[in-house]
Amino acid sequence: VRKIKLEIAYDGTDFHGFAKQKELRTVQGTLEAILERIAGRPVEVLGSGRTDAGVHARAQVVHFVLDGGPPTEKMVYILSRMLPRDIVPIRACDASNDFHARFSTLQKTYRYTIQRATVEDVFSNRYAWHITSALDIVRMKEAAVHFVGEHDFTSFCAASTPIQNKIRTIFELNLEEHETYLHIFCTGSGFLQNMVRIIVGTLVDIGQGRYVPFDVVRMLEAQDRRIAGKTAPALGLCMWNVVYPEGLEIST
Amino acid sequence: VRKIKLEIAYDGTDFHGFAKQKELRTVQGTLEAILERIAGRPVEVLGSGRTDAGVHARAQVVHFVLDGGPPTEKMVYILSRMLPRDIVPIRACDASNDFHARFSTLQKTYRYTIQRATVEDVFSNRYAWHITSALDIVRMKEAAVHFVGEHDFTSFCAASTPIQNKIRTIFELNLEEHETYLHIFCTGSGFLQNMVRIIVGTLVDIGQGRYVPFDVVRMLEAQDRRIAGKTAPALGLCMWNVVYPEGLEIST
Repeated sequence: VRKIKLEIAYDGTDFHGFAKQKELRTVQGTLEAILERIAGRPVEVLGSGRTDAGVHARAQVVHFVLDGGPPTEKMVYILSRMLPRDIVPIRACDASNDFHARFSTLQKTYRYTIQRATVEDVFSNRYAWHITSALDIVRMKEAAVHFVGEHDFTSFCAASTPIQNKIRTIFELNLEEHETYLHIFCTGSGFLQNMVRIIVGTLVDIGQGRYVPFDVVRMLEAQDRRIAGKTAPALGLCMWNVVYPEGLEIST
Repeated sequence: VRKIKLEIAYDGTDFHGFAKQKELRTVQGTLEAILERIAGRPVEVLGSGRTDAGVHARAQVVHFVLDGGPPTEKMVYILSRMLPRDIVPIRACDASNDFHARFSTLQKTYRYTIQRATVEDVFSNRYAWHITSALDIVRMKEAAVHFVGEHDFTSFCAASTPIQNKIRTIFELNLEEHETYLHIFCTGSGFLQNMVRIIVGTLVDIGQGRYVPFDVVRMLEAQDRRIAGKTAPALGLCMWNVVYPEGLEIST
């Protein structure tokens, strides 16, 4: 019996999110069905976080416990032959018993992509929010500064979220322009439901002149979802990186 | 009554090719159905060329004749609201009666994309042929030279093609590396069925050491499909550019 840490990438377009749902195509459900075929018994897959329907991952991390089955170093190859094209296994290794894909995380980075162009690119419109109106990037960068640090993110969390403690820390919130694309990288201790999407939606509102950068401070203080800006669409969001403490991987 | 020249981009993954087929989702069929709604009567759409199932287009050009309907300058906006996400209208203009999307072409460029990496990228695996084995790019470039010029491309054409005249001219065949991607740009007077895909498949065979660069000359001379290399998969191919003589567009 061993615990395996697996890194996967997926195109979230055709999934109803990461978390398993009866009768719906999900990332967790797809992985568990294939691992059950490999293991000959049900296998529970735990992810570093649940991504919503339409959200992508460059590096989602999951773990599962396997009794027997193929050697870990063959796992990526075997899974790559069995998984559908929109999930790609990147790396597998044995992990210590202390490792937990969700609870061991130190920090996570999400990337949000906006395409600023008159005509959207058909090859990236599954992965980018297409905006035709002008965006004041300088103001958006000014606003981004106010999100960094430890804050109560109640205003930037789906109102329906049952979690009590909405205090989170954002380590970095950077905007990078690359040709017609604007990438927003957000690194934090953890994220509430829709948190990155509401932060991005609010930055876009500011870029379009609906708010001024300093309004972010007022929004955070309000602790009321209705005071913050809009929620950016899921398709531009991508789980970019998950960091764990060293020493939880077992080299074989 | 006016003739409209329309440039479109599409992600070919979920289409059964460009050409209309009963009961199947095709680019031509999708366009004609929407134009019929706009025009209130059937509209025939003619393309610069038929792309196979899975082949993409950055710039396919089509024409159609419209009696009434919205002004041409609003066409892109109207179509962008009505077309599915995997077809994007780029540009529309009025064309002279002499213009024909297929017969007026001077030259066409296709781009073929290969991803060379241990792990494929889930965000480009709809658009690139993923190759893990080593490719000798220098030899592939040496081989490419032999395709340029006027040749009988019988060996590089699907054997079932009914067309008699298989003489075509390739103006340029360039390999460009960009990070883990290899782009093969092929510009010619016109292309036979599967021609670019067989040229690319043969270049890959040469890159993998199955043939030497000069074998291309022997393959062209053989005029026999069985002598050339494999057919590269459709998904890496993209109609990149179509050039027409000047003076066939009407500025409004």
